[in-house]
Amino acid sequence: VLTEIERLVEGVLNSDRRSIARCLSLVENNPSEAERVISLLYQHTGNSQTVGITGPPGSGKSTLIDKLVKELRRRGKTIGVVAVDPSSPFTGGAFLGDRIRMQELSVDEGVFIRSMATRNNLGGLAKATKDAVRVLDASGKDVVLVETVGAGQSEVEIVKVASTVVVVLAPGLGDEIQAIKAGMMEIGDIFVVNKADKDNVDKAVIDIKAMLGLNQKKGGWVPPVLRTKALSGEGVSELLEKITEHTKYLKGGALRRKLLGRVEVELVEAIRSRVAERVIDDLREEGRLDEFLQKILEKKLDPYSAADVLLAEKLKKSE
Amino acid sequence: VLTEIERLVEGVLNSDRRSIARCLSLVENNPSEAERVISLLYQHTGNSQTVGITGPPGSGKSTLIDKLVKELRRRGKTIGVVAVDPSSPFTGGAFLGDRIRMQELSVDEGVFIRSMATRNNLGGLAKATKDAVRVLDASGKDVVLVETVGAGQSEVEIVKVASTVVVVLAPGLGDEIQAIKAGMMEIGDIFVVNKADKDNVDKAVIDIKAMLGLNQKKGGWVPPVLRTKALSGEGVSELLEKITEHTKYLKGGALRRKLLGRVEVELVEAIRSRVAERVIDDLREEGRLDEFLQKILEKKLDPYSAADVLLAEKLKKSE
Repeated sequence: VLTEIERLVEGVLNSDRRSIARCLSLVENNPSEAERVISLLYQHTGNSQTVGITGPPGSGKSTLIDKLVKELRRRGKTIGVVAVDPSSPFTGGAFLGDRIRMQELSVDEGVFIRSMATRNNLGGLAKATKDAVRVLDASGKDVVLVETVGAGQSEVEIVKVASTVVVVLAPGLGDEIQAIKAGMMEIGDIFVVNKADKDNVDKAVIDIKAMLGLNQKKGGWVPPVLRTKALSGEGVSELLEKITEHTKYLKGGALRRKLLGRVEVELVEAIRSRVAERVIDDLREEGRLDEFLQKILEKKLDPYSAADVLLAEKLKKSE
Repeated sequence: VLTEIERLVEGVLNSDRRSIARCLSLVENNPSEAERVISLLYQHTGNSQTVGITGPPGSGKSTLIDKLVKELRRRGKTIGVVAVDPSSPFTGGAFLGDRIRMQELSVDEGVFIRSMATRNNLGGLAKATKDAVRVLDASGKDVVLVETVGAGQSEVEIVKVASTVVVVLAPGLGDEIQAIKAGMMEIGDIFVVNKADKDNVDKAVIDIKAMLGLNQKKGGWVPPVLRTKALSGEGVSELLEKITEHTKYLKGGALRRKLLGRVEVELVEAIRSRVAERVIDDLREEGRLDEFLQKILEKKLDPYSAADVLLAEKLKKSE
C-alpha cells in the first residue's frame, strides 16, 4: 500500500498537474514533509535545464520569460516556471494586461507556473525555491525557469538554484550601476540588454563588457552580452541558443564542480539544522544532561568544559 | 610555568585591578579565549550577590546605583558594576555632571566599574555580560550590580545574569505602562518608585501593586514596592535591606531552582554553538563528507537522508 506521500511523489513523476501543485504547496508550507518528498524525488532530479532570470523591476524580465516559454513550446519543450519576484506578473503583481498575457501560458499542459509566497523568511524561501525547482525537475520538465528580482535585497541566491543565470538589464534605468552594486556582474552567465530600441543601448553594452572584462577569469566561459526587444520577441531565439551553448559548456566539466559545491553547502546545512536538537535530546534521554548540570552547580565543571566533555563522549571517532 | 591565561586568572582571583580589566576586555572581544578564562574561573564563582538594576532611561537608576554603591561601601562591602545601558553615565552617555559623580567611585579600590560596548551583536552582548559578572564574582566582590535599560528592546535578559532583579520606575514618565509592556512586571523581585517627591507617587505604587497582584504566585516571594529619592539617598538603606532579604529567601531553595534553569540554558547553548562545526569537521577529516557528496551527485542519496545517515553513524548511543 502506498502512503499519501508516496502517491503524491508518483503523481509528480507522472507529471500529474494536481500532484505537482500539491507537492509545491508542501514544499512552501511544510518543511518537514517537504524533506520526505524531496528524499523520494531526489533520484529523479537533475534532468532539467535550470535557468535563472534575474534583473531589477522594470527591466522586462517577465515579458522575456513569456517569450522564452512560447519559443521553447514551439520547439516542443515542456517548461516549469518558478517566480520569486513579488512584482512579477506571475506572482500577481504588475499590470492586469501583463497578468492576463501570462495566464494564457498556464492553460498549456506543457507549462507549469508557480509563484512563491514571499511571506516566508528569507532562509525558508531560499530552501522552498530550491525544492520547488526539484519538484518541477522531477516532474519531467525539459526546462525550469526561475525568476528573481536579484537586487541587493535578493531573497534567493539564484546561483544555488539555477545552472545558467541570465541577468536582464534595461538601459536608462541606471541598471548597470545597480547591477554592479548588487554583485550581478559576478553571477551572470549571460547578459541581456532588453528594450534595446532606446538610444543608449550601445553605451550599455560597452559598459557591461568593460565591467565583465575586469572580472574575467582566463580559460572559462565568456559571458555574452545580448540585445533583446522582449515585447516584439526580437533576440529571444539568440538568447535560447546562448543558454543551450552554456549548458553544453557546463557539461564539459564545469557543471560537476558547480553541483559539487552546491550539494556540499546543502549537506552541511542539513547536518547543521538537525544535529544540535538530536544531540541534546539524546543527552537528555540518557540522563547525561542532568548529571552534568549537577556537576556544574557543584562547581566541579563549567558549562563550556561540560559541553566539550559531553561532545567528545557523544561523537564517535572513526576507527 | 604558568600560561598567560593562567597568570591572568590568578590575577583576577587576587583581585588585581589590571588583571580584572584585561579579563573583562577578553570576555568582550575574544569569545574563544573568554571560554578558557571562564573555565578556569568558574569554580571560584557563585559567591557574590548579583543584583540587576533595570528600568527605562530617565528613571534615575544610575543615580540609585551611585547611592547603593556608596552605602555598600560604608558597610564595608566590595562592589562590581557592569553597565549595559548605552545611555548610562557609566558608559559615557548622559550629562557630564552625572559622569563626573560616577567617576568618583572608580578611584575607590573596593569598586570596579565596567561598561559593556553595545557594538556587539545581541547574543554576543548577553554572553559577554554574563561572563563579565563572573569575572567580578571570581575576583571576590561581595556584590555585583548590573545596570540594563530593560526596555522592550532589552539587550540582555537580566534574569539570566542576576539573582535579584530591581525594577526602577519614576511616576509621570508613563513608566508603569511601559514596564507592563516590556514584561518587567514578571522579572522584578523588588520594585522601586524613584523620584518619589512627585505628586503621583501614591497612584504609581498602587498601580504597580495591583499589577503584581494579578501575576502573584502563591507561597512565593511577594515583590515589595519601595519609594526612593535617589538624589538625596532617601530609601536606599531600605532597598538594601530588601535585597538582602531576597537573597536569604533565594537561599531557602529558590536559588537552586533558579540556577539550575540558568545553567541548563547555558550548557545547551554551549553544546549548540560547537556541535555542528565539530561534527562537520570530523566528517570532512574522515573523508565521509566527500564520500557522501559523491553518492548525492550520483543520485544514490538525497542531502536530507545523507545527513540522517551520517548523524546516526556519528552519534554514539549510550549502551
